[in-house]
Amino acid sequence: MSKQITGSEIERLIQLLAKMPGLGPRSARRAALHLIKNKDRLLEPLSAALQDAGAKVVECSVCGNIDTVDPCTICRDPRRDPSIICVVEEVGDVWALERAAAVKGRYHVLGGTLSALDGIGPDELNIASLLARAAASEVKEIIIAVNATVEGQTTAHYLTDQLRDCGVSVSRLAHGVPVGGELDYLDEGTLAAAMQARRPF
Amino acid sequence: MSKQITGSEIERLIQLLAKMPGLGPRSARRAALHLIKNKDRLLEPLSAALQDAGAKVVECSVCGNIDTVDPCTICRDPRRDPSIICVVEEVGDVWALERAAAVKGRYHVLGGTLSALDGIGPDELNIASLLARAAASEVKEIIIAVNATVEGQTTAHYLTDQLRDCGVSVSRLAHGVPVGGELDYLDEGTLAAAMQARRPF
Repeated sequence: MSKQITGSEIERLIQLLAKMPGLGPRSARRAALHLIKNKDRLLEPLSAALQDAGAKVVECSVCGNIDTVDPCTICRDPRRDPSIICVVEEVGDVWALERAAAVKGRYHVLGGTLSALDGIGPDELNIASLLARAAASEVKEIIIAVNATVEGQTTAHYLTDQLRDCGVSVSRLAHGVPVGGELDYLDEGTLAAAMQARRPF
Repeated sequence: MSKQITGSEIERLIQLLAKMPGLGPRSARRAALHLIKNKDRLLEPLSAALQDAGAKVVECSVCGNIDTVDPCTICRDPRRDPSIICVVEEVGDVWALERAAAVKGRYHVLGGTLSALDGIGPDELNIASLLARAAASEVKEIIIAVNATVEGQTTAHYLTDQLRDCGVSVSRLAHGVPVGGELDYLDEGTLAAAMQARRPF
């Protein structure tokens, strides 16, 4: 849209909104209009919330999670089992596992996956701090909960290698049919993995 | 997500983002993480842009468009033909028509459509101001460019009735096959309208 027809402030808002994941140029325009129309209810609170989050959110120096306190709420929770560390790629994965209440222990956020193509080696990820945590006597199990992608699995293999001498048991998430999933829609790899890992009924 | 696992500032940001059109709870979480990760490049500029837009954007007292000046950039542009007023439902429609460079004249934003169901009558829309503008001697044509929905067409008929005594010609957008559209995917109503309005080749 040319500058001729509307103020540059609106233009700039649309440009920034279009950079968010899930919003293209068209939906960014819709979102901008919606925000401007709902100034008191949405635009001003959102501006304040962004400022708040920007000012207060920090990365946890222990696990790499984000929170408004450091160490993060999970790391400082005494009810969490200190003998288990669940390794994930991103903060979003921590949130997903917490929604499922699937982890009794604590987390470690790698910040990505190894990727020769993108020039991401072990030094670019939070791997040194993971090895340091794994060496502590209280840690008994490391659960590697990375994505089931090529990059994720490469990273998982690398971590397993590195953790061999730490005296901890290393596990990974099970592969199989998603709960609620229909066989007809699943790929061959998942079906083969589910068949191979079949369990007595 | 419970408050236990992350700061309330992040929680509040996610809740507000989820109220934007096109973002559900899952994409709001992704957007929040993306914003927090790109604090300098995205989160802080977006917060400032929202504040700017909130402070400076006003509704044009002539046509109902939004802009940072009143009258809006379009209304004060001397190169615009003052004899043509294009009537649209929402500000987004002005932007769409401007992208298509389809209107030589100026606009009038109704702010919605007549809807008995939602209790929206003529007084809830910018219709009185349209009739006042149409009565000016310089105005020759009113183009009714509302959506081709039942509510849009009801509104168009009402406006045509009201404008009858203003001495202006009233036109509406053509119905037909969208440019690039395939006949096989079009509904019967559109095909019938396109056939009826067929033109010599």
